[in-house]
Amino acid sequence: MNILLAQQNYHIGNFESNTEKILQAIAEAKAQHADLIVFGELSICGYPPRDFLEFKDFVDRSYACIEQIKQAATDIAVLVGGPARNPEIQGKNLFNAAFFLYEGEIKAEIHKTLLPTYDIFDEDRYFEPAHEWKVVEFKGKKLAITICEDIWNLGDNPLYTECPMDVLTKQNPDVMINLSASPFDYNHATNRKAIVKANVKKYGIPMFYCNTVGSQTEVIFDGASLIFDKAGNVIKEFPSFVEVLDGAILKDNNSVEGNIQIPAIQVADKENVLEKLEPTLNIAAIYDALVLGIRDYFQKMKFKQAIIGSSGGIDSAVTIALACEALGPENVRAVLMPSPYSTSHSVDDAVRLSENLNNPYDIIHIDKIYESFLSELQPIFEDRPFSVAEENIQSRTRGNLLMAIANKLGYILLNTSNKSELSTGYGTLYGDMAGGLGVLGDCYKLQVYALARYINRNEEIIPENIITKAPSAELRPNQKDSDSLPDYEVLDQILFQYIEKRNGPNDIKALGYDPALVDRTLKMVNTNEYKRNQFCPIIRISPKAYGVGRRVPIVGKYLS
Amino acid sequence: MNILLAQQNYHIGNFESNTEKILQAIAEAKAQHADLIVFGELSICGYPPRDFLEFKDFVDRSYACIEQIKQAATDIAVLVGGPARNPEIQGKNLFNAAFFLYEGEIKAEIHKTLLPTYDIFDEDRYFEPAHEWKVVEFKGKKLAITICEDIWNLGDNPLYTECPMDVLTKQNPDVMINLSASPFDYNHATNRKAIVKANVKKYGIPMFYCNTVGSQTEVIFDGASLIFDKAGNVIKEFPSFVEVLDGAILKDNNSVEGNIQIPAIQVADKENVLEKLEPTLNIAAIYDALVLGIRDYFQKMKFKQAIIGSSGGIDSAVTIALACEALGPENVRAVLMPSPYSTSHSVDDAVRLSENLNNPYDIIHIDKIYESFLSELQPIFEDRPFSVAEENIQSRTRGNLLMAIANKLGYILLNTSNKSELSTGYGTLYGDMAGGLGVLGDCYKLQVYALARYINRNEEIIPENIITKAPSAELRPNQKDSDSLPDYEVLDQILFQYIEKRNGPNDIKALGYDPALVDRTLKMVNTNEYKRNQFCPIIRISPKAYGVGRRVPIVGKYLS
Repeated sequence: MNILLAQQNYHIGNFESNTEKILQAIAEAKAQHADLIVFGELSICGYPPRDFLEFKDFVDRSYACIEQIKQAATDIAVLVGGPARNPEIQGKNLFNAAFFLYEGEIKAEIHKTLLPTYDIFDEDRYFEPAHEWKVVEFKGKKLAITICEDIWNLGDNPLYTECPMDVLTKQNPDVMINLSASPFDYNHATNRKAIVKANVKKYGIPMFYCNTVGSQTEVIFDGASLIFDKAGNVIKEFPSFVEVLDGAILKDNNSVEGNIQIPAIQVADKENVLEKLEPTLNIAAIYDALVLGIRDYFQKMKFKQAIIGSSGGIDSAVTIALACEALGPENVRAVLMPSPYSTSHSVDDAVRLSENLNNPYDIIHIDKIYESFLSELQPIFEDRPFSVAEENIQSRTRGNLLMAIANKLGYILLNTSNKSELSTGYGTLYGDMAGGLGVLGDCYKLQVYALARYINRNEEIIPENIITKAPSAELRPNQKDSDSLPDYEVLDQILFQYIEKRNGPNDIKALGYDPALVDRTLKMVNTNEYKRNQFCPIIRISPKAYGVGRRVPIVGKYLS
Repeated sequence: MNILLAQQNYHIGNFESNTEKILQAIAEAKAQHADLIVFGELSICGYPPRDFLEFKDFVDRSYACIEQIKQAATDIAVLVGGPARNPEIQGKNLFNAAFFLYEGEIKAEIHKTLLPTYDIFDEDRYFEPAHEWKVVEFKGKKLAITICEDIWNLGDNPLYTECPMDVLTKQNPDVMINLSASPFDYNHATNRKAIVKANVKKYGIPMFYCNTVGSQTEVIFDGASLIFDKAGNVIKEFPSFVEVLDGAILKDNNSVEGNIQIPAIQVADKENVLEKLEPTLNIAAIYDALVLGIRDYFQKMKFKQAIIGSSGGIDSAVTIALACEALGPENVRAVLMPSPYSTSHSVDDAVRLSENLNNPYDIIHIDKIYESFLSELQPIFEDRPFSVAEENIQSRTRGNLLMAIANKLGYILLNTSNKSELSTGYGTLYGDMAGGLGVLGDCYKLQVYALARYINRNEEIIPENIITKAPSAELRPNQKDSDSLPDYEVLDQILFQYIEKRNGPNDIKALGYDPALVDRTLKMVNTNEYKRNQFCPIIRISPKAYGVGRRVPIVGKYLS
């Protein structure tokens, strides 16, 4: 049996384009004489559709696409994902389903059992878990079909009491097929391979694992679909971050034909749990994810060009380099906006960066606008000393200029704030926190440095001086980040313990960090929730990003 | 048995202040010789604690408070809400629990069964549903104790298959006691009384229903706790939006002592479903909710003073009047910022408003700042015609001025955008969309008018001209809202069908609205999700507000 996996990039709610993409792959699979083609989880509507699922109209449109797709499923079987209505009166009104289409009919409907509700997931909000589990018989093979999270409990996952494969295995399946929309983070591909391997080892049959690729606002799906033989060898690992149509032959004895990849991919037996931030871990994959995140956001929003404030600092330099890779340097406009407190080397460094990248840039001095603000505010400010108010006026003037150019000429403003800044509130709402997409908002400062080194791996793209000089917001004379913040080597590790590991103050102090610094850091994180709440979507590259996956009260008083 | 309900206002994560408040009420209840005092759902930590529950440290602190509170539960029983650890290895690691404290001990722990995941709720993210149901025996009475949502399925709620009272009723309870954190909306108090009555009718015993009061960022809890006798009469309905300690006597024959309120409150037998927007419905309650929302936000954030941009339009006028009521007029600073396109009557109207309210105001002309922006941007804008870019520069200049004054002098900026504008994207990011709290963001324009009439019910506070003139953003010559938007009488009804009713385009057209207008309106809503995503928290007064309760993809293509 020739099974193909379609690792595709869907657009949420864009039924027309998703269906067209699915039909094209079916046509190609037919040309390759495939018996079965497998698509990703909720492929028809895109994942995650979120509250669009509350609209009957949305689900109707999805069903209409199934009607269309099943016409093409004649001499080939098609496994495609979409919401399915629950005919029962009680319980959630939808299932997260896979439709098995063959001979122009819906031959089977498979429902997802394990509905994740952690981090970015909200599946219990919409879906009823499966009530029954049946293998699908097709051309003499019994297919055990599951959806994404269903394979993440092998009986020992504390989140779940059900284990759908434990039920299916009693029906003597020949192969496992999983339709996923499993998001990227810098540690997840490792863990995903480990869990697929663990399933293969436990149930003793091969696994065809089809993952989605592409960016959905903040969440990146990396693809990296997998085919394992029944011995636990990787037969195929699809490339990450690109669309692929590929597969393997499931033979009569349930062996899988296809060369075992050379060199053989080593797959860990257990998931990998990070105990501390490792800033260079999988930095190439992070780079690729960010580039995909930018590119896909622009393509799906039907924009071509980005505008970015270029300060001469490392965050804007890395963002500009990423945007040039994603969109082409001719589509990335850097705007240098020196204030009275900007140093000349900052302007020089920013100019050199754009010369290296060959992207257009402008220089707009903000001194006069800044002075006009101060002059109009003088009757209210009177002779009060310089404070954060004056710093923020500069930052917000830059935000206004960038947005004005974006509005006038049709750019999207990319934001350059990093996760260390966002954590501590070291940024200006409506100023340097403005933008449509947060490129580095899930990268700690140490990871931004690692990205800069990675970008410069072959040649100096980011001027060395940008990487080596002390970070500064340059909003008052001789300002340095270190005036307000702990050293990033310490700060980022404390933040990682709090954000990613959910450790409380005592746990973090027990790791040896200065108690006062721990308290001060956690307080900064919690008192600045109101700022992050107004921040744009952040491309997610970690297991815990700010945004939809981290939901904390704004008005609260915990560690603050 | 003398049972008191403590309708209290908690602060999320502020264990010290919540515990102190609980202990004070216990002391007062002892003085009143009460047998039992009942607090709200998750009263110890505040509701909703959201992802704070993922911190072991947070749950530890809650347990420490129970230890403290149980010392006070000696000659009085105390029912208090908090997270409880699930001792099982599998399943979610917490229950949403009520602790029954007596004789200095935890005598019983009651777990919530029905965990809502719709709208603002995320309870499946954190909590395991109850595994067992037992009445609590106390002083010869059997108490059927449930938590909030547990009473919202009488066997016919399609969301749920469980019905905890159906189990408890088999143990012959004498009384129902419910600990709630049930949020306000303009229709909810009616429905809450109907559901309590339906429970009383079905199970034939009295109900003591204790609800929380107060604002938690965007969500308002109105209190309005209820005591019903077993015949379905309202014995007590607590006032809304204030803290109350009150109760009734449960007599030996399970009758409830306390005068039936005169005039007898009529309670509907069924929940009330709104088929269209009724702009004046419960406008007094909406007013009170908004005042509480503002006041509580400031108190919990430890701020005293608000700053508001005053345009001479109705949205800012209503916001300023609400803020004056919530904070005192001396604490509300209005800033008039006329541009070259402002009409003189706007300034006059805004001045007269602040004279009526007796709140301080400033006038800052933005012409010079605006000119300095245009001058610096001239090399980029060249001779392109006036566009939304120039409009937005004015709006963002105002945002910058307001934030500068707020930063310098310690104000919170209140936002004045209404739900009609936010729905259609008729506002400027970082401009008139700036602010810490959205006062009117859940009120359609027609409701804003109703609020203005309500505010003026005794005397003209909002100048009549503000209410009667045609709405305008005044960002270009002779601009009117009606240049860009449909009439609010039609627009608001279409929006209500789409947002509140989740009707799709065909359903709305079938109601008789112009098809092209429906399509255009829904497209405006969906393409402007990126703007609302960066908006501040909105005080929620409807069953479906923008914010945590409405989660839709930003990058998507559905009806857009």
